[in-house]
Amino acid sequence: MATDADGNLPMPADLEKGDPSAAHAPSSPPAADEGGSVVRSVVDRWRREDLLERGGLVLRALLLLFSLLASIITASNKHGDWKDFDHYQEYKYLLAVSILALLYSAAQVWRQAHRFSTGRDLVPRNYAGIVDFAGDQVVAYLLISGASAAIPLTNRMREGSDNIFTDSSSAAISMAFFAFVSSGLSALISGFKLSKQTYI
Amino acid sequence: MATDADGNLPMPADLEKGDPSAAHAPSSPPAADEGGSVVRSVVDRWRREDLLERGGLVLRALLLLFSLLASIITASNKHGDWKDFDHYQEYKYLLAVSILALLYSAAQVWRQAHRFSTGRDLVPRNYAGIVDFAGDQVVAYLLISGASAAIPLTNRMREGSDNIFTDSSSAAISMAFFAFVSSGLSALISGFKLSKQTYI
Repeated sequence: MATDADGNLPMPADLEKGDPSAAHAPSSPPAADEGGSVVRSVVDRWRREDLLERGGLVLRALLLLFSLLASIITASNKHGDWKDFDHYQEYKYLLAVSILALLYSAAQVWRQAHRFSTGRDLVPRNYAGIVDFAGDQVVAYLLISGASAAIPLTNRMREGSDNIFTDSSSAAISMAFFAFVSSGLSALISGFKLSKQTYI
Repeated sequence: MATDADGNLPMPADLEKGDPSAAHAPSSPPAADEGGSVVRSVVDRWRREDLLERGGLVLRALLLLFSLLASIITASNKHGDWKDFDHYQEYKYLLAVSILALLYSAAQVWRQAHRFSTGRDLVPRNYAGIVDFAGDQVVAYLLISGASAAIPLTNRMREGSDNIFTDSSSAAISMAFFAFVSSGLSALISGFKLSKQTYI
């Protein structure tokens, strides 16, 4: 049923005024309806792909944020004596994987921005799916590994005493864990996109 | 254009010698070729699905084997005094995730055996794909997490001295890592199958 801009049914007054949309809508043949459902399914598909695209973008941005926080918090966790992160291999590993995740997500966001501005993708189309998926999945495994390695040491230190060093470590571990969740979800989306990829 | 094995165009000499490939190629009717290519593509698809099925089965069996070894080696790692695995939360965690992986893979193998013998799947068809994928992926994350948690402690103990306790721990960690690789690859396969699933 044809409606005007406010969503109301067209009033005879509108018809008399010669509103073109109200006048033409009822005369459209049924064939146009079938065409309409095809158009709708195509539009639905575009909308779904757009949702996946946006979801992937938001998750990569979250990954960038959380891995940046994890890197900064770990790297600045130096309070002298035994309270230096670089005396412990666990925190050095956590810093390393956070920086890897940071570099990966920064490269992805930069690539996305480049694609928006120039319309060209930096990665060849045939490899884009596999590069995205492999990157997200490997970063997710690295981040959960780094967080898991750092947790027992921090836990054991906190049994002795809570201080600024252990609190910062806990914060960095939490950030790495959130980054892991982001990249794990991102891997789900890019795996789905990879499997639906068409090679035309 | 029919060519011989060297990629050259057929010479009159070849035709006179009665080379079968050169002689028959032009005379085969196009209709038979089309039918043949359809059959071939269907058979290729079956073969690919069969390969995925078998690959998934082999990886689950490997997961069962490696998680069984990891559980047994960790649980039997008691040599008195400080050399008991249950004094350390890392090894208890490793044991827990190994047992979870063991239970999961045993359930999967049992389900597979049930399907082979009765032809019915224990999981409703619509959920089979997502159950497989989620199970494999979660077990993979758990195993890499357990192995990562146990590595720094073992590494630090081995700096002091190598003995049967640290050697057993290293073996258990290696087994857990192999189990992680199996379940990670299995997650790739079941994710691919999930994305190609048809809901008929």
